[in-house]
Amino acid sequence: MTESQANTPATRDTDWIEAIAFDADGLVPAIAQDAETGRVLMFAWMNREAVAKTVGLGEAVYFSRSRGKLWHKGEQSGNTQQVREIRLDCDGDVLLLSIEQAGGIACHTGRESCFYRRLENGEWQVTDEVKKSPEAIYGNG
Amino acid sequence: MTESQANTPATRDTDWIEAIAFDADGLVPAIAQDAETGRVLMFAWMNREAVAKTVGLGEAVYFSRSRGKLWHKGEQSGNTQQVREIRLDCDGDVLLLSIEQAGGIACHTGRESCFYRRLENGEWQVTDEVKKSPEAIYGNG
Repeated sequence: MTESQANTPATRDTDWIEAIAFDADGLVPAIAQDAETGRVLMFAWMNREAVAKTVGLGEAVYFSRSRGKLWHKGEQSGNTQQVREIRLDCDGDVLLLSIEQAGGIACHTGRESCFYRRLENGEWQVTDEVKKSPEAIYGNG
Repeated sequence: MTESQANTPATRDTDWIEAIAFDADGLVPAIAQDAETGRVLMFAWMNREAVAKTVGLGEAVYFSRSRGKLWHKGEQSGNTQQVREIRLDCDGDVLLLSIEQAGGIACHTGRESCFYRRLENGEWQVTDEVKKSPEAIYGNG
């Protein structure tokens, strides 16, 4: 058996990641949805490595475009995201994660969801309270 | 009263759209979620005009990147999306639409949701049935 043949199973193990159509920057959008309530908590990006790490760890790992590096969600705040399920859309270019949100806070503002503003009569109204201040979360206070 | 002053109220009416951080291509990601079930049905993009039309019509209008033009969802299939609510995320660069999906089909494959594949044991498994064939939807049969 050649080394190439020996590696075939390992190669097959990553076939699923080949099905993902990363964009020109090597990124794919990822939507995180609360597994219990169905609420959409956040939206971020993943590169190939982030996707692999997310599946390997069972916790969401994104790629921070602003910092240009992997971002294990909750590594600083403790608000990690246990991944229950990952879905891929019809075009293979968007991921949907069903997650359990540690601490009940997904947003860096200290709110449950990043989508805390609703359009009402031509204005963005804040609908969610801050559950924990960013200072308390990140220790910058 | 100058013309500029006369236009002030109209300008104010669009302040909410100014709060949206469109990307370098003038686009913002939009997630469409079923208002009743909470299921995420699809993900697409909007430009400024699409956002304005969506709010004006009360139906989702996206920007098709492949066709390079506005795309009033359901204009061909009849599977329009009545918009119940629009939310904006913390960074102002992602929209979340709560919608009522006409026909119960959001995906061009004839499925309820575009996210019809789930990662199971290293493979993308199709979890949703085709409710209506694309030929029947688009009349290409």
